[in-house]
Amino acid sequence: MMKVPVLEIFGPTFQGEGAVIGRKTMFVRTAGCDYSCSWCDSAFTWDGSQKENIRMMSPEDIFGSLDELAEGNYNHVTISGGNPALLKNMEAFVEKAKGKGIELAMETQGTVFQEWMKQVDDVTVSPKPPSSNMNTDFDRLDRVLAGLDGGDGSYNLKVVVFDDGDFEYAATVHLKYPSIPFYLQVGNPYLGNNVENHTQKLLERYGELVEKTMEDPRMNDARVLPQLHTLLWSNKQGV
Amino acid sequence: MMKVPVLEIFGPTFQGEGAVIGRKTMFVRTAGCDYSCSWCDSAFTWDGSQKENIRMMSPEDIFGSLDELAEGNYNHVTISGGNPALLKNMEAFVEKAKGKGIELAMETQGTVFQEWMKQVDDVTVSPKPPSSNMNTDFDRLDRVLAGLDGGDGSYNLKVVVFDDGDFEYAATVHLKYPSIPFYLQVGNPYLGNNVENHTQKLLERYGELVEKTMEDPRMNDARVLPQLHTLLWSNKQGV
Repeated sequence: MMKVPVLEIFGPTFQGEGAVIGRKTMFVRTAGCDYSCSWCDSAFTWDGSQKENIRMMSPEDIFGSLDELAEGNYNHVTISGGNPALLKNMEAFVEKAKGKGIELAMETQGTVFQEWMKQVDDVTVSPKPPSSNMNTDFDRLDRVLAGLDGGDGSYNLKVVVFDDGDFEYAATVHLKYPSIPFYLQVGNPYLGNNVENHTQKLLERYGELVEKTMEDPRMNDARVLPQLHTLLWSNKQGV
Repeated sequence: MMKVPVLEIFGPTFQGEGAVIGRKTMFVRTAGCDYSCSWCDSAFTWDGSQKENIRMMSPEDIFGSLDELAEGNYNHVTISGGNPALLKNMEAFVEKAKGKGIELAMETQGTVFQEWMKQVDDVTVSPKPPSSNMNTDFDRLDRVLAGLDGGDGSYNLKVVVFDDGDFEYAATVHLKYPSIPFYLQVGNPYLGNNVENHTQKLLERYGELVEKTMEDPRMNDARVLPQLHTLLWSNKQGV
């Protein structure tokens, strides 16, 4: 049985960020990550705090949960994590989804490639900037992007930016892969559920990133986006 | 000389809405419209209030202005209005832009087709819902979409939603053209520059539209977006 560790299944909601921003979707969030970013907004997927909520699920189990939530009311599923690219067994879910005519998106940091990623309609590869305290292994990123290049879907690069060092890192990544659609996403340091004026603070940070992007000719091709779900709902889990 | 009436040229800024949301771009806003939507956010393009600012400009004039603002710092231009599809002479600007390797986007309500629209990379066709007090001529919309179907670029449908009647209209449009990418955009009734708490009010309206979309199986394929520039800057002109 091709089971995968799942921490959350929720929706219908909308994708609040990146290349498919605004798209009505369901989320399947897998457990486990090879990174531990300082500002991770889903640290519960790898820090052990919600270990007891992890369920080993087959494709049938996952679609059972999805349909219980929203049968007939979705045709798009986003695979998120953690890093779902760690899971070879996700292949069975992806095949079942494609067989049902469901569109798929996923996000991964670009450290590991799996053959099933070629069947995902929109893959966001999001290497992590210096503020995460993670180091990018560009050889591994190269291999992930080369793998996707032979696939059926679209893929893009997205870099989260908290500060000037991150912005320079973003420019380096974008210039290294100039033909891959590139997204800048403003970082969210307000991870608590009760940060005062979080929306205003996030929009201020977004405005600053927009300004920086507008001034920099290296970013002529870039798209610069906020996380819409955090503007609406802060960092609440399950939406 | 192929001149067109231009009201504003500005940038670099970012596209705050629709299919190319977040993209760094320059704006060329043409004067004149065949509509007079009740809630138009650029009514100065057709209500006569800025008539004295209209300049008849050749492609060279327009690129002169663009380069004065941002030479080397842009590679994408958005043609907006008014309704730029009224202007046959825009052909010369589009050809010059393509010759320079500049990417183009435009927005129009879908009443008139011009051959040059086939060369625009991203055309947003935005028929107007009942709250605008305009009536959609679906035969004309059909002809515009058929024209774009033979073009080189992408095109999409976008409907602005202020109320339940608009949402039903949006569903009708989406179901009539199910294979065309479809965007729902929350309406902005706060057009003054000094509306108190405009960002919070806009986000509340956006949250309500998100919820409505999530509950409605007719919208499974839709994307639902706010206008990011209004979240940052209200309805200020020239950004």
